[in-house]
Amino acid sequence: MTQLPSKIRINEEGPREGFQIEKNHIPTERKIELIDSLSQTGLQQIQTVSFVPPKNVPGMADADDVVNGFTRFPDVEYTALWLNERGLRRALNHSKLDIKGYLSLCASTAFLAKNQKRTPQENLQAARDLLQIYQDHEISIHRLSLMAAFGCNFEGDISPSTVVKFVRQMTDLLAEHNMSANHVSLADTMAWATPASIKRVVSAVQDAFPTLDICLHLHDTRGMGIANAYAGLEMGVALFDACVGGLGGCPFAAHKGAAGNVCTEDLVFMCDEMGIETGIDLNKIIESALLAEEIVGHPLPGSVKTGGSLAILRENIAKAKNA
Amino acid sequence: MTQLPSKIRINEEGPREGFQIEKNHIPTERKIELIDSLSQTGLQQIQTVSFVPPKNVPGMADADDVVNGFTRFPDVEYTALWLNERGLRRALNHSKLDIKGYLSLCASTAFLAKNQKRTPQENLQAARDLLQIYQDHEISIHRLSLMAAFGCNFEGDISPSTVVKFVRQMTDLLAEHNMSANHVSLADTMAWATPASIKRVVSAVQDAFPTLDICLHLHDTRGMGIANAYAGLEMGVALFDACVGGLGGCPFAAHKGAAGNVCTEDLVFMCDEMGIETGIDLNKIIESALLAEEIVGHPLPGSVKTGGSLAILRENIAKAKNA
Repeated sequence: MTQLPSKIRINEEGPREGFQIEKNHIPTERKIELIDSLSQTGLQQIQTVSFVPPKNVPGMADADDVVNGFTRFPDVEYTALWLNERGLRRALNHSKLDIKGYLSLCASTAFLAKNQKRTPQENLQAARDLLQIYQDHEISIHRLSLMAAFGCNFEGDISPSTVVKFVRQMTDLLAEHNMSANHVSLADTMAWATPASIKRVVSAVQDAFPTLDICLHLHDTRGMGIANAYAGLEMGVALFDACVGGLGGCPFAAHKGAAGNVCTEDLVFMCDEMGIETGIDLNKIIESALLAEEIVGHPLPGSVKTGGSLAILRENIAKAKNA
Repeated sequence: MTQLPSKIRINEEGPREGFQIEKNHIPTERKIELIDSLSQTGLQQIQTVSFVPPKNVPGMADADDVVNGFTRFPDVEYTALWLNERGLRRALNHSKLDIKGYLSLCASTAFLAKNQKRTPQENLQAARDLLQIYQDHEISIHRLSLMAAFGCNFEGDISPSTVVKFVRQMTDLLAEHNMSANHVSLADTMAWATPASIKRVVSAVQDAFPTLDICLHLHDTRGMGIANAYAGLEMGVALFDACVGGLGGCPFAAHKGAAGNVCTEDLVFMCDEMGIETGIDLNKIIESALLAEEIVGHPLPGSVKTGGSLAILRENIAKAKNA
């Protein structure tokens, strides 16, 4: 059998991924309430907001207020997303945030043209510009990120060699600046991955970049999220982005067919049951998931918040035996 | 990497698992419509009804009418479920059915006591009685089935050695009668399995019964269904029970947290994308899933019926390139 990692680290992206996509208005204090709830689960990293133009993402118009409002807990890193210097400058105004530099490219030329109206060359130049800004601000690079690493609705399948090519563009760029990254996040942006393609792509990236950790950013649109995470674990991947409750899905559909990100508590449940440490308390993260569901006002796709923990059943069985 | 099977066979249980649990009345002709739709997907086996007392399972009161009504398609086997001689006799009235004998035990003594008010000895005797009836009717044994093979809400974890013990009781019983079975179905009745326990249990059963094929009967209550199926594939399992749309779930909850069985079209999608033949047309089984959803009148938990096929996206991309 394959050797699974003994522990993993989960980067919670629910507040950012979830609240930026919800069509209904979510009051600022409720966003803060969710972040504060997540802070008490044992999560080590929470992506709180994105600093993007309100006209593009109305749900993030109150990003500054959200950051001002949440309470920092010890041993938790609070991050934010930005797409350019303007967004980064907004983030830098907040001493409460952990400013972690990142670069992002896209494995699909067609998706890049469609969504960002850029060529790969223009996108690489944008990454180079951002890197210069990081250097000016003495911000170190935490993460490299590659969108559409497993397939694209506009380009089709993405080969492992294409993934390696784009990751190498980023590591080369860092090397030019005598910088290095902590990990590379491979994003299944449009939910094309299966366990087999997870293994093919992760294997190619591991072979090409043996010293770079891999993070998986998985979407569950076709129900493969947890299976893909398991395939990643089998390849030794120990970093995952996830969203509490499965936040990030399409807001008007009440079932997992419209799900966005892989669900934090379902991932924690699987790890708990397989003896993989996450540092996260399953009961507490389930509470956060139920809170998230109440806040968005519609069912969220995660399963364990409804199916329940096995640890509690085991405790009840033990109690009944001893009674 | 692990060697996956080149093809699998899916036993569709949606009509039986689904319609026996739905709280709303489903007209007989709509049940027939779903079976006829499933018959045209490439499925090789469909479990149509269960012959059980209507007072216990009102949704199966029209089982005889359903069997009388559906159309047999070539190359499809149509099976039914029964729990005793009375049910079997009802099934035998229908020449349209493929009568496939099966024996069933339960790995959890506590669940057996709770749900069937039997001791393991009484349950084994019931299996022995049923086997005698099969012999009297010259019915061969197709399947052995073990409930609660991965854990139980009333007993807790079930060890692989317990699973092997109960499977051996069934193979011993067959040997006494000079009979043998085609496969053993290991059922995760209460959704306790994870990929790791799937591998442990399947491995133990493979070691103990090297000539017996294994079937997995998975529930998705904690979101592990597809990941568990993948773990089974990695162990070489090539037989799966599944339900179109994820039928079999709790009827009043509209999301996968209440899901029952692993979803047929999601399993077909994963296999298609990993190069594993199922014989099932994904587009057609998605049509059946959407029909099932319309019939039950509430969202079903499957993902691919909403997320969509990748094959269609690939075709569209190819057409656009050639245009």
